[in-house]
Amino acid sequence: MKLIPTILCGGAGSRLWPVSRELHPKPFIRLGDGQSLLQKAWLRGAALPDVVETLTVTNRELFFKTEDEYREVADIVGGKDLTNRFILEPFGRNTAPAIAAATLQVAATQGEDACLLVLAADHLIADQAAFAQAVSKAMQLAAQGRLVTFGIQPDMPETGYGYIEVDLDSPVPFVGGPAGESAGFPVARFVEKPDLEKALEYLASGRHLWNSGMFCFQAGTMLREMQQHCPEILAASRACLEQSRTAEGKSFSQVDLDATAFKLVPDDSIDYAVMEKSSNVAVVPCSIGWSDIGSWTALGALTAPDARGNRIEGEVTLHDVSNCCIHSNQRMVGAVGVNDLIIIDTPDAVLIADRSRAQDVKHIYARLKAEGHKTYRLHSTVHRPWGTYTVLEEGRHFKIKRIEVKPGASISLQMHHHRSEHWVVVSGMARVVNGQQELFVNTNESTYIPAGHKHRLENPGLLNLVMIEVQSGEYLGEDDIVRFDDVYGRS
Amino acid sequence: MKLIPTILCGGAGSRLWPVSRELHPKPFIRLGDGQSLLQKAWLRGAALPDVVETLTVTNRELFFKTEDEYREVADIVGGKDLTNRFILEPFGRNTAPAIAAATLQVAATQGEDACLLVLAADHLIADQAAFAQAVSKAMQLAAQGRLVTFGIQPDMPETGYGYIEVDLDSPVPFVGGPAGESAGFPVARFVEKPDLEKALEYLASGRHLWNSGMFCFQAGTMLREMQQHCPEILAASRACLEQSRTAEGKSFSQVDLDATAFKLVPDDSIDYAVMEKSSNVAVVPCSIGWSDIGSWTALGALTAPDARGNRIEGEVTLHDVSNCCIHSNQRMVGAVGVNDLIIIDTPDAVLIADRSRAQDVKHIYARLKAEGHKTYRLHSTVHRPWGTYTVLEEGRHFKIKRIEVKPGASISLQMHHHRSEHWVVVSGMARVVNGQQELFVNTNESTYIPAGHKHRLENPGLLNLVMIEVQSGEYLGEDDIVRFDDVYGRS
Repeated sequence: MKLIPTILCGGAGSRLWPVSRELHPKPFIRLGDGQSLLQKAWLRGAALPDVVETLTVTNRELFFKTEDEYREVADIVGGKDLTNRFILEPFGRNTAPAIAAATLQVAATQGEDACLLVLAADHLIADQAAFAQAVSKAMQLAAQGRLVTFGIQPDMPETGYGYIEVDLDSPVPFVGGPAGESAGFPVARFVEKPDLEKALEYLASGRHLWNSGMFCFQAGTMLREMQQHCPEILAASRACLEQSRTAEGKSFSQVDLDATAFKLVPDDSIDYAVMEKSSNVAVVPCSIGWSDIGSWTALGALTAPDARGNRIEGEVTLHDVSNCCIHSNQRMVGAVGVNDLIIIDTPDAVLIADRSRAQDVKHIYARLKAEGHKTYRLHSTVHRPWGTYTVLEEGRHFKIKRIEVKPGASISLQMHHHRSEHWVVVSGMARVVNGQQELFVNTNESTYIPAGHKHRLENPGLLNLVMIEVQSGEYLGEDDIVRFDDVYGRS
Repeated sequence: MKLIPTILCGGAGSRLWPVSRELHPKPFIRLGDGQSLLQKAWLRGAALPDVVETLTVTNRELFFKTEDEYREVADIVGGKDLTNRFILEPFGRNTAPAIAAATLQVAATQGEDACLLVLAADHLIADQAAFAQAVSKAMQLAAQGRLVTFGIQPDMPETGYGYIEVDLDSPVPFVGGPAGESAGFPVARFVEKPDLEKALEYLASGRHLWNSGMFCFQAGTMLREMQQHCPEILAASRACLEQSRTAEGKSFSQVDLDATAFKLVPDDSIDYAVMEKSSNVAVVPCSIGWSDIGSWTALGALTAPDARGNRIEGEVTLHDVSNCCIHSNQRMVGAVGVNDLIIIDTPDAVLIADRSRAQDVKHIYARLKAEGHKTYRLHSTVHRPWGTYTVLEEGRHFKIKRIEVKPGASISLQMHHHRSEHWVVVSGMARVVNGQQELFVNTNESTYIPAGHKHRLENPGLLNLVMIEVQSGEYLGEDDIVRFDDVYGRS
């Protein structure tokens, strides 16, 4: 049975502002080891036995960034010639539409027997071996025609998660596993996020597990269940896929969901739309070191504390400080006489929150979004298909950017009406079209693009091209751009 | 009687880090109205009746910066053709050596009858009219041959200041003042910083005033008192002045104290060396809205609080925050569920302190200084005689600076062995010497200085020249510079 790790990469992670932003959401947060949550999710799936392709459902605007993330860690599962398929959403639409599209696509291309393993892009699973065993149990249950969930053994009366009540009386044997070990159990029922009293009761019961939001099922099983419980979602998703553009390449395929048709797919979660209604759901209880990294408290806890309970990343100078979580990127953070604070410093925004209020960071994000403040949406470093740019400084009539172009990548042939640009190459080598001229600009050389000149920048080399761009003009908005030809389809 | 406001500009203001730095000390801190404490001190003296010159004692490294500060606000006391004299110290040496040098210099150039009004560069005085009246009282007392101090009417049992005990029984009449009003009183004694119990007693006594550190005296009086109470300080200061270089210009004079000789002047405060020993000290009690802006609590208090007691400067987004003092310069500060914090954000460092621990911020400064961390000494914007530079970004083999050159100013003829420089003018116009070439570089033009080329940059215009410099090379330290010719005497 084919297994296709299916990564759902959505959700802003507004409680992890200022590191997470609308266009740099939670899955892209890097941990202390340099890997992002998304990379870890992809590796988690890719490393499973016999996996030869992955499927990722994500926002269209995050596609290039996601590809970059996967490429960066592909060597870790080296030897495997993996195909990374994508379904690109024009906007977020909850989990049921995402899973419907993924299931339909897998059924059409891999057959109804193929098995989807739905993974969240922004969770952490510390124990890969335990995870792999849980997946092999889930595959057995899925092969028996069940929808399978993964239930996390609770270790505290958490009120922020939904719970799964297990029918302990009907264990399903684990074929080929240790004697007496079951693969899983039927689900008695799903229960909503409880209050503390209920949560304590669930913790004590021994019959309640956290709903991790991961699933495993054969494509055909899910299609039948959707046909029964949410036929409108299934039909609208099918219609949407039919109207969507598909691109196929070597070890690559990409479905770009049609926005008009996707808007007609009802917005619902897979739990409400299918799981809670189906009588055919099993659960694999797991202890796999799972965390949903739901707030700065959880993310901070990944850093080891010092003698005073401070969890530090970056440069800090502390005087009488304890139990604080401090992350700094470039700046010196000085703290005096404070306790139980979360202090997160980024190039253009800093967060100071009481530790007990980590959940409320989402209100800051929401306010910034409502006000259209740039710090809810973008970091000062912005990802583009060809690389990144970072605004170093803006002043009256000038703007300075550091531009990094990936090897082999190029910026579209373009023209600006209102600004001229000076380009100084500080690392690597550029091939530049500047009006009628075509030239190479080497490290420590520069060129000048007058306003009105068509120009293109390309990195023909094998190393990153790093360039300083000094823009000069009366109007310097990013929207002063005419694209003539764009390899990324944006002209 | 000539009155010479004498501004002592020393002291780091380590409790006001990260805004104050060793080379941007407390007097240079700008308040909400855009004026620095130093500018306010200078204006305070310059605005007094009949003042035609000022004298400033400051560190040599702060000279150009101080001149810039004065030039910026000179128009406010416009019409006055003021001479700004300077005594430049090679290093800090407490108040007695500074006042000895100032007194000797005034006596030599203006005569022993001339009156010095010693002002701290980093205090705030809200009521200029009351201050002017206090000065006119002090001048009467000084004319009678007294050393005069200014005593601040206490309104709380402050334990951080020294106190002056007043001999209330012997008022000195205020000639020409309102009937019955005295000019001042003899000082009974100076008392050290008290504990809280003593401070409460002083507050209740009605006979104790805060020692503001401001003084008024005729040069001859101070010389006689020093001869009597600290003859070694006087003699060493006299010897030092004799060995020091003096420069005189139109409305300008500058004594550059000889470092070797200055080191021989005993390090002492004017209070210990003279005031506490003399029987000839009078005090003018004042209510002039004085504050020594000793910590972020005091500086924060200058901003009006919002409904929840938050005192805000800059961009912030708050959720359930109260009684915080937040200053942000360029970044968004988000805060959640915190109270009574001081949050100060600067381009390269951020401070988070409990409000009750504002005094302890000095420990952060001390630690950074001990570790030689750049954030104790410099801001990312560095002041030079010719203007400023700001490091925007440093990377492997490149560094990017924004350079601002004042109208008429020029950078020394210089050469770098290891780096070449690209200059892009984004505002104003530059005259550039580049090897054998001399050229003008206008806004939106650029030039390239190869390593090994002698070059000079000059702003021949009437507006600031703003330039982006992209340095490229194997070694980019500020010490890779050969100066051939420098109008500021640094070659």
